[in-house]
Amino acid sequence: MEQHLQEAAAGDEAPAGVQERRRRVAVVGAGVIGAGWAAFFACKGLDVHVVDAHPGARARLDDALQRARRTLQALGGLAAEVREPVLGDDLGQAVSGADHIQEVLPEQLELKQRVYAQIEASAPDRCVIASSSSGIMPSALQAGMRHPERLVIAHPCNPPYLMPLVEICGGRETAGWAVEEAEAFYRGLGKRTVRLNREITGHLVNRLQAALWREAVYLAVNGYASVADVDRAVTEGLGARWAVCGPHEIFDLSGGELGMAGFLDKLGDAVEAWWASLGQPRLDAATRQALIDGMAQAAAGRGYPQRAQARDEGVMAQLLARPN
Amino acid sequence: MEQHLQEAAAGDEAPAGVQERRRRVAVVGAGVIGAGWAAFFACKGLDVHVVDAHPGARARLDDALQRARRTLQALGGLAAEVREPVLGDDLGQAVSGADHIQEVLPEQLELKQRVYAQIEASAPDRCVIASSSSGIMPSALQAGMRHPERLVIAHPCNPPYLMPLVEICGGRETAGWAVEEAEAFYRGLGKRTVRLNREITGHLVNRLQAALWREAVYLAVNGYASVADVDRAVTEGLGARWAVCGPHEIFDLSGGELGMAGFLDKLGDAVEAWWASLGQPRLDAATRQALIDGMAQAAAGRGYPQRAQARDEGVMAQLLARPN
Repeated sequence: MEQHLQEAAAGDEAPAGVQERRRRVAVVGAGVIGAGWAAFFACKGLDVHVVDAHPGARARLDDALQRARRTLQALGGLAAEVREPVLGDDLGQAVSGADHIQEVLPEQLELKQRVYAQIEASAPDRCVIASSSSGIMPSALQAGMRHPERLVIAHPCNPPYLMPLVEICGGRETAGWAVEEAEAFYRGLGKRTVRLNREITGHLVNRLQAALWREAVYLAVNGYASVADVDRAVTEGLGARWAVCGPHEIFDLSGGELGMAGFLDKLGDAVEAWWASLGQPRLDAATRQALIDGMAQAAAGRGYPQRAQARDEGVMAQLLARPN
Repeated sequence: MEQHLQEAAAGDEAPAGVQERRRRVAVVGAGVIGAGWAAFFACKGLDVHVVDAHPGARARLDDALQRARRTLQALGGLAAEVREPVLGDDLGQAVSGADHIQEVLPEQLELKQRVYAQIEASAPDRCVIASSSSGIMPSALQAGMRHPERLVIAHPCNPPYLMPLVEICGGRETAGWAVEEAEAFYRGLGKRTVRLNREITGHLVNRLQAALWREAVYLAVNGYASVADVDRAVTEGLGARWAVCGPHEIFDLSGGELGMAGFLDKLGDAVEAWWASLGQPRLDAATRQALIDGMAQAAAGRGYPQRAQARDEGVMAQLLARPN
């Protein structure tokens, strides 16, 4: 990958008429996330080869490409030439000559391992294989690979063409160069990467999300506030700040010139008391039903398409408004 | 309050020259939050009487008024006529004739109760007394009051002139009319209110914030990722969505047309597994030091004023970008 980045840089200075080779990405699996990745890579000017035998894959790809194109046109960063992803069911053909392989298969360890063996039979030896898995550890994924050192997790937020974040995590056998190449690859396409130094269930995003939702469930299901009001406590207060400052910096800044030390001196004990009193709900049948009913009430008759569109437009407006 | 709202409405239709009475708010305590409230009320065209004998109060008020004016000019909603808050140390004078009383004293129960007794000696009997307390329960605050039914918690996010959210919570003796008047009052000034049906330590915002930070502390202090990368997982992914959709709706929408039920069927068990694995750090000395060091590294030499300004400008840009 480093080599290709250098080629690209050299290409900028090459005399007109010298065509640099377009970088090539293989996307293995075209579910919602896979189609989103493929559309994103295509909109960034890469040659994208998608492997998926499912009859619905073409429609998902077309739909994702249309939305990704609109999104990147609005946000900036749409490549001058966008080629439609090539869709096929020949895995060997798709990955041979690839500069980057994005695996987006269902969350089944054995399925993924079986496909990795097929990928390694055709892909260049030093090509990074990036798994989008949110639930399986990289050390488990790479067990049994011929070149386990090139396996990394690269977990996006949904949809991958809109959200800036990609979480990068290697397993026990992952090489430093693979992590660095993956970071450079996504950053080169405008993504913001974060790196896990050690693997852990749920990486960062799903753990943080689960932690917030656990208390949100507790508060709503125990009748402290409605589902709508718990959500509003986030959108009208906390979320507006979290879009700008992370949870550590929020408290650091609330310590003023004294920073985190000042915050901990003044409020550390109060925070520990809150931690001790946080809820520990289970998702039993009654809790699930309460969440379903509470959410129906919060939606107040606004259907899925309307609310999903409001979310996407809201997030886009918010990303557009950010200083860069 | 209802009566005054009706007067105001009638005033709109009154012949020119008939002066409607400006509504009057007493703000008891001019620390950072008190000064912020006072500035907000003044910028909304209310007559504000602030009680604080501290020599630094005038400077804090002036500073807050300047920032509030700039903020509301940018966001929209600055009143045509903004009168400077009147600052004094005569509590009885400030609260007599008040339409709303905002108590913003230090978090000491006995101090607050003593001042409530003084307030009640001079304030109109049906005037709502709204406490900004984040840490004391309303039932404790109202114990011993002559008119406990009018005591509500109205807890803002900081700074009160910028953040839309106000949490409203009554205690055991609070009357329905007091909660409704408080809600109508803040909403009338453009705030978004959420209502707690039962009191609980930390209300909604501090509990949700503590829940997220607990996992953020666990991940950073145990070396899974740097403080900066944990924060980035929020700002570049989760926060951008939480500014638009609350935690319940995020998962509801990720269930597609099947909504919350579909999400729970597909991922409920995975979420429970994440919950079981969430960290339970303590804020012991080593943890505090790790957070202080990690935050210093994350700040990378950018000082408090620069980062606080970036936060405020970022939040403002983001609020401006919201569809309304």
